[in-house]
Amino acid sequence: MGRWEPDARGRLEQAALELFIERGFEQATVTEIAERAGLTQRTFFRHFADKREVLFAGAGLLREFLVSAVASAPDSAAPIAAVAAALEAAGALLQERRESARQRQAVIAANAELQERELIKLASLASAIAGALRQRGVTDRAASLAAEAGIAVFRIAFERWTSQTNQPDLPQVIRESLDELKAVTAGE
Amino acid sequence: MGRWEPDARGRLEQAALELFIERGFEQATVTEIAERAGLTQRTFFRHFADKREVLFAGAGLLREFLVSAVASAPDSAAPIAAVAAALEAAGALLQERRESARQRQAVIAANAELQERELIKLASLASAIAGALRQRGVTDRAASLAAEAGIAVFRIAFERWTSQTNQPDLPQVIRESLDELKAVTAGE
Repeated sequence: MGRWEPDARGRLEQAALELFIERGFEQATVTEIAERAGLTQRTFFRHFADKREVLFAGAGLLREFLVSAVASAPDSAAPIAAVAAALEAAGALLQERRESARQRQAVIAANAELQERELIKLASLASAIAGALRQRGVTDRAASLAAEAGIAVFRIAFERWTSQTNQPDLPQVIRESLDELKAVTAGE
Repeated sequence: MGRWEPDARGRLEQAALELFIERGFEQATVTEIAERAGLTQRTFFRHFADKREVLFAGAGLLREFLVSAVASAPDSAAPIAAVAAALEAAGALLQERRESARQRQAVIAANAELQERELIKLASLASAIAGALRQRGVTDRAASLAAEAGIAVFRIAFERWTSQTNQPDLPQVIRESLDELKAVTAGE
């Protein structure tokens, strides 16, 4: 046993990601996932509605985290600064789970239906961030644009982070991508 | 008969949009659409694979149009300027079909599955634009950022354009939204 014993949910997630990569998302079954985690199917279904939810269960938490980070930015922060601070804070959390983030990304990249689900998740994050900005008094259009731009930066930074082997720092990659967006939209 | 006789495809599209709005997308049937257009089901299926395709058949053409517009921007144009020129040119085309664009938007807004399909369409447009920018020698990250930013601007401008009753000019709304994105990303 290692120094850290993952709980049942963590073991199921790890087993599922391994199986999705080894056998493909379509082929892997809940029975196999539970078996590999050394748990029962019943335990699996106590934690996840189905195997797809293993990949998307974190979305709700991420959304709440981003919304509350945007809300708690200083009053003086410009919309894009509030969004950037929220994304970097989320990036710092994800940074600690780099290996499973990388595995999850590989599973999604290999399956068109999962890619669609991921797009829908990202759109829902953008819409939640826009809502949090409107709560700060930002106009509709500026809120939508800052949120969509932020999510585009996040997605592109995330892909870059998971695909690179030199293990860059995710909040740093997010900052660099946002700087590049600023340069690109300024017409440089 | 009016001064303009729409062809079979145009009549089917118009009948479908009317029925989707009157009865809901789920409820309207191909039989009803063909009937209202004064055509046979057989003719419907010569033009569209199913009723959903009535709403998304234009996506392929729009993608080709945007890709070729990005490719034909002057060599000296910055990535965001090439994208802006392509979006405004597409906007000028859509401007001529405002009423059906407005109806289509209302149908999609009322149905979660169609909203997902629309998201996938927009992601595919962004990815095609990014490809066209890479062909111009733009780096991967800048190409993705300029394309995603462009599509966010387009989506937000399009929603604004279809929801306003004073019939603003779509290319103009696109320009204003891009200017606002520039201000927002600059931290204003």
